[in-house]
Amino acid sequence: MDLNERALKLHEKHVGKIKIESKVEVRNNDDLSLAYSPGVAEPCKVIAENPEKVYDYTSKGNLVAVVSDGSAVLGLGDIGPLGAMPVMEGKGVLFKAFAGVDAFPLCLDTNDKDKIIETVKLLQPTFGGINLEDISAPRCFEIEEELKKITNIPIFHDDQHGTAIVTSAGLINSLKIVNKKMEDIKVVMNGAGAAAIAIGKLLLNLGVKNIVMCDSRGIIYEGRVEGMNKYKEQFAKTNVDNLKGDLVVAMKDSDVFIGVSKGNTVTVEMVQSMKKDPIIFAMANPIPEIMPDVAKAAGAKIVGTGRSDFPNQVNNVLVFPGIFRGALDVRATEITTEMKIAAAYAIANLINEDELNEEYVIPNPFDKRVASEVAVSVAKVAMETNIARVTRDLDEIRQRTINMSSI
Amino acid sequence: MDLNERALKLHEKHVGKIKIESKVEVRNNDDLSLAYSPGVAEPCKVIAENPEKVYDYTSKGNLVAVVSDGSAVLGLGDIGPLGAMPVMEGKGVLFKAFAGVDAFPLCLDTNDKDKIIETVKLLQPTFGGINLEDISAPRCFEIEEELKKITNIPIFHDDQHGTAIVTSAGLINSLKIVNKKMEDIKVVMNGAGAAAIAIGKLLLNLGVKNIVMCDSRGIIYEGRVEGMNKYKEQFAKTNVDNLKGDLVVAMKDSDVFIGVSKGNTVTVEMVQSMKKDPIIFAMANPIPEIMPDVAKAAGAKIVGTGRSDFPNQVNNVLVFPGIFRGALDVRATEITTEMKIAAAYAIANLINEDELNEEYVIPNPFDKRVASEVAVSVAKVAMETNIARVTRDLDEIRQRTINMSSI
Repeated sequence: MDLNERALKLHEKHVGKIKIESKVEVRNNDDLSLAYSPGVAEPCKVIAENPEKVYDYTSKGNLVAVVSDGSAVLGLGDIGPLGAMPVMEGKGVLFKAFAGVDAFPLCLDTNDKDKIIETVKLLQPTFGGINLEDISAPRCFEIEEELKKITNIPIFHDDQHGTAIVTSAGLINSLKIVNKKMEDIKVVMNGAGAAAIAIGKLLLNLGVKNIVMCDSRGIIYEGRVEGMNKYKEQFAKTNVDNLKGDLVVAMKDSDVFIGVSKGNTVTVEMVQSMKKDPIIFAMANPIPEIMPDVAKAAGAKIVGTGRSDFPNQVNNVLVFPGIFRGALDVRATEITTEMKIAAAYAIANLINEDELNEEYVIPNPFDKRVASEVAVSVAKVAMETNIARVTRDLDEIRQRTINMSSI
Repeated sequence: MDLNERALKLHEKHVGKIKIESKVEVRNNDDLSLAYSPGVAEPCKVIAENPEKVYDYTSKGNLVAVVSDGSAVLGLGDIGPLGAMPVMEGKGVLFKAFAGVDAFPLCLDTNDKDKIIETVKLLQPTFGGINLEDISAPRCFEIEEELKKITNIPIFHDDQHGTAIVTSAGLINSLKIVNKKMEDIKVVMNGAGAAAIAIGKLLLNLGVKNIVMCDSRGIIYEGRVEGMNKYKEQFAKTNVDNLKGDLVVAMKDSDVFIGVSKGNTVTVEMVQSMKKDPIIFAMANPIPEIMPDVAKAAGAKIVGTGRSDFPNQVNNVLVFPGIFRGALDVRATEITTEMKIAAAYAIANLINEDELNEEYVIPNPFDKRVASEVAVSVAKVAMETNIARVTRDLDEIRQRTINMSSI
């Protein structure tokens, strides 16, 4: 059986991938009177008087909604909320397996930005955090921005920030190998959607000055009119040499290529036109912008992809379980840029200098240390920057995360 | 420790009462590629092409949202969505324990009827059914009515229909004992809220002709102006003798009293003014309208309450697990009056003629047969009346429900 058939069988066998379980037993009237009426009235009353107690007496503090409208699902595009359900349930499976987070899929029957915002806002009482997923750009930016303003729980669009954080971790480690600095490199990005914009923004926060972003119309530059939006606009300014033209022009004399668009878009000649020790993150799926062996033969020093069958897989699962684990554990009110940077360094630093090499700049998704170290780094920064509403011991967070993981 | 302290301890120990679990394992890259990318794309594609397949490849078909705005929680009233969380989680615990339904709490941060309707409508892709809970009247009627129109999954306000179905089951059996017919009895109801209106409507469907409903202003009659709404209005018409006045007037020469309002409102004299063999369902909680021993001493033949420490407990848990189990199993598009009547008879008929007595007109909540027989009766009617979208074997539903129950 091929992968597709096996995947169908797996989904059919269990009729989906998640279920709700009780943490308490109900076997007699006494159990019933404690878990439900009349005993349940007591925690209700306590919470009504002191809302913060909801974190002590309910599951809220460990509940994350995985919210999607099904408009930008994997490589499938706009397949709608029903079609998106398997992905959102899968996300729930990974949240649980990697970091013990209870994540519930919520697929919404609308593409209307304001309705999505309103729905999530109204659902806030139930959840400790919101993972936005597979919502198309530019709505995803606007939805996340607005929700961050009007809620007091972490809002995290994984397609943006998960990808940005892992890519950043890979770049941090790659630059150690080629002995270059963020400040000095020229980064070319192909793609200007959710992931690209978020990667670009995080790289700017990591110190990169020169980013040339390309979309289907070519290089984004100051003064370009067609096919622009305010998110692309900021990357007109990072095109410091004001380059115009196509990807060929962009890639000449660059240090790093980051692809988050279409496969088979980078040629041998383009790689050869880059500066010494080219770094290539070719993350189009399932076909990368250039195959790793081809890129290597053309002179690339380090190549990462989105695929598990090549070295240096850029996989969001390195991020979202741990980042929510850490944020939830200290009841963070949001996930800030500082917390994202901390997560990127935590992932990068799991590979020590002795181990670091061209084929190992990003940890393996099944490295059991990842989620706990990400959680610890994120919780630490949240506490230091007054984003946390409770203080917790970092060793306790680390150990608890390891215990909650089943990988 | 008293009940309240024990209930707090229980809720604190587990930090809430529900969790999300995976049905699939994720231990290596192969698992990951089946449960998530790239394998998950295959069920997504199949569902996008054939939406009904969502029931085969996702958890939707067994997922029920327990939706509340926290406006009418137990005896606590309007304590808001955070305060309501323990009850909604508790409901999830009971759904799972009694009938294997995966029920997820959703507490909404609004009392606005239209926003609640819109939110549930947008959430429809994820769920196989919606259990509305603890939403105050008359909004609960309007919300349920509108959602029934605009969705194609079961919408069930348990405070209304769960109570109505168990009360009806109790009355069906009580009338066997006193040898009276629905058509001939005079029923007095105290309370005109969600439960009262639903009980009244279901009794009319069971054949009762004479219902005198009282609210805080006294008897509801044709021509009364103050404190009326369209839901009460229909019970002005069932006041066939056009009685006016207070509960004392209403109860004279009645056969059945049903209390769903305030405790300590029925006196010995009122019971004594009823016809032969009075039937009393005094369901105010925790203090009934009249205590069972007092009612009995005054001549009541049969007394039921909402409490587990007296005989004949009117407990919704006899209904909602089984009714959703049956509706979900045949993918019913709604829960109709016929299905509710079938559920009432299924519950009543679990007590056979030899067992039936004044202290046993309603089965025990932990009678393992209840959920499966309710599920079977509901599924049967749904299939017979073209409410079901799939056909299933009734014995299979019965056995599966028994297997899924953990009580």
